Amino acid sequence: MDYDIIVVGGGPAGMTAAIYAGRGGWNTLLIDPMGGGGQPSTTDTIYNYPGFPEGIGGTEIMDLMARQAKAFGVKIAFDEVARIDKEQEGGFRVTTGEGGHTAKAVVYAAGTHPRKLGVPGEEKYLAKGISFCATCDGALFRDKVVAVVGGGDSALTEAVFLTKYAKEVLLIHRRDEYRAGMANVKLVRENPKIKELLSTVVESVRGEEFLTGITVRDLRSGEVRDLEVQGLFLYVGWTPNVEPVKHLVDTDDHGYVLAAEDMSTKTPGLFVAGDVRRKPLRQITTAVGDGATAAWSAENYLLLRGAK
Amino acid sequence: MDYDIIVVGGGPAGMTAAIYAGRGGWNTLLIDPMGGGGQPSTTDTIYNYPGFPEGIGGTEIMDLMARQAKAFGVKIAFDEVARIDKEQEGGFRVTTGEGGHTAKAVVYAAGTHPRKLGVPGEEKYLAKGISFCATCDGALFRDKVVAVVGGGDSALTEAVFLTKYAKEVLLIHRRDEYRAGMANVKLVRENPKIKELLSTVVESVRGEEFLTGITVRDLRSGEVRDLEVQGLFLYVGWTPNVEPVKHLVDTDDHGYVLAAEDMSTKTPGLFVAGDVRRKPLRQITTAVGDGATAAWSAENYLLLRGAK
Repeated sequence: MDYDIIVVGGGPAGMTAAIYAGRGGWNTLLIDPMGGGGQPSTTDTIYNYPGFPEGIGGTEIMDLMARQAKAFGVKIAFDEVARIDKEQEGGFRVTTGEGGHTAKAVVYAAGTHPRKLGVPGEEKYLAKGISFCATCDGALFRDKVVAVVGGGDSALTEAVFLTKYAKEVLLIHRRDEYRAGMANVKLVRENPKIKELLSTVVESVRGEEFLTGITVRDLRSGEVRDLEVQGLFLYVGWTPNVEPVKHLVDTDDHGYVLAAEDMSTKTPGLFVAGDVRRKPLRQITTAVGDGATAAWSAENYLLLRGAK
Repeated sequence: MDYDIIVVGGGPAGMTAAIYAGRGGWNTLLIDPMGGGGQPSTTDTIYNYPGFPEGIGGTEIMDLMARQAKAFGVKIAFDEVARIDKEQEGGFRVTTGEGGHTAKAVVYAAGTHPRKLGVPGEEKYLAKGISFCATCDGALFRDKVVAVVGGGDSALTEAVFLTKYAKEVLLIHRRDEYRAGMANVKLVRENPKIKELLSTVVESVRGEEFLTGITVRDLRSGEVRDLEVQGLFLYVGWTPNVEPVKHLVDTDDHGYVLAAEDMSTKTPGLFVAGDVRRKPLRQITTAVGDGATAAWSAENYLLLRGAK
């Protein structure tokens, strides 16, 4: 085997798993298309990762984690994982865009990707007004008008959360009814700062350097309107990056990997961590907890098999 | 109610819960006998908390977390929690040494306290030679002989740390193999100041005003010996600080609180986080994950009850 442990994904979960595995003296490779970064690197400043009272840049915290992993001897490969297979001799083959590697254990922390709207202008204003995380970016829109797109519990919860900062929150949902639970619907309807635009879709996005507005269409009347908003929060879903391990794990209906409390999956030696697994809250804090636990479990798995 | 959320315990779990609750705009009080610090503040340098590639001092990281909580408006009380009761009107009464407070929800993150040996003489020499914190007390034993009892990562790490001061460190472990990771075992074996006493137990402790010696038994040979040591550092396990909430939660056989994945307990509105709950791995990483999740759950609980 080329490595004791291969970590797939360089967000906080993967980096933490690598830090622990490297520090434990295991020959460890981390594979990430960008060499690391994950979800936080799409956020300007992170205020709720404990230890940084003034906040820290999303790319900055991830650079620090990568440095820490390297300091413990972890190798980092800029590569994309296409598929993971369990080999007959008990290890794993990790097939990547540039070839492949083998390892005795794998921590799979490939995260999720947010669903986008797929409308004109969207790509240009990602992280320039368009956000996927109210918790992270809400405070940037104090006394501004923001729009939230989505009809599930995330969208409604975050719309309510954003009223703490924004002077007005437009809640845009393409259906005439929310998917969210009654409790959240009630909270939305009781909140004077939230304006609901049901049966409405965003058709395009515009701005200067930053987002300044969106164009929406009312699906019942067909009416098209331009709205001035400074923030656009998309909660039209996340998709777990589960393809490479789909045949080795159980998932829930949304594709999130089901793991035990110790991050083990149904395939011995394959552990998961971070956003790709089903769990209540997806944050850097919970990702580093998962990563540490997954590495610890991988180490125990290797020790029990006499790998060291 | 005095507060929306009271957080009990100022280690990484409690501080993180407070950071999240404060940032969420909830009127939040954190109660800790030392005003915060928790387990990390007994550690010299922490190398595996992601974001600090050169390591960070244990008190330093906790000071940073406390500053971050305060920056989000959290009040911190230097006080000890004796008991928590659920009030008829749905909130909680938190009784402390200096009185008490009420809150709509509680995050209980009171951690654990170190176990003692339970041998003759021990009570008399607590803080008079017997210590649970090498970082706090190590410098008192410059050029002295000290013993460390335990076989886990804490025991081995602290034994190595103590060689900075002590002229000799006896590492006493009742089994013939350590539970600690390979990296720490290697550091111990490479350190000429550390003398290992495996399959050995401490039978009693003696001294004048301060500790002067211990009696140990070799479990293989049965041989009993008196050893002169001026310091005795105990790393033989932990006991969860569960008393104040024992009547409100379910626990496992060791007293650790059983919580759901969202950190809820059997008492609605009472959430737990950190070392006090049953979980596979107790680290700063997993504590901050718990703390964030507990705060998020407490916020949802309050929102559903229309508390905001």
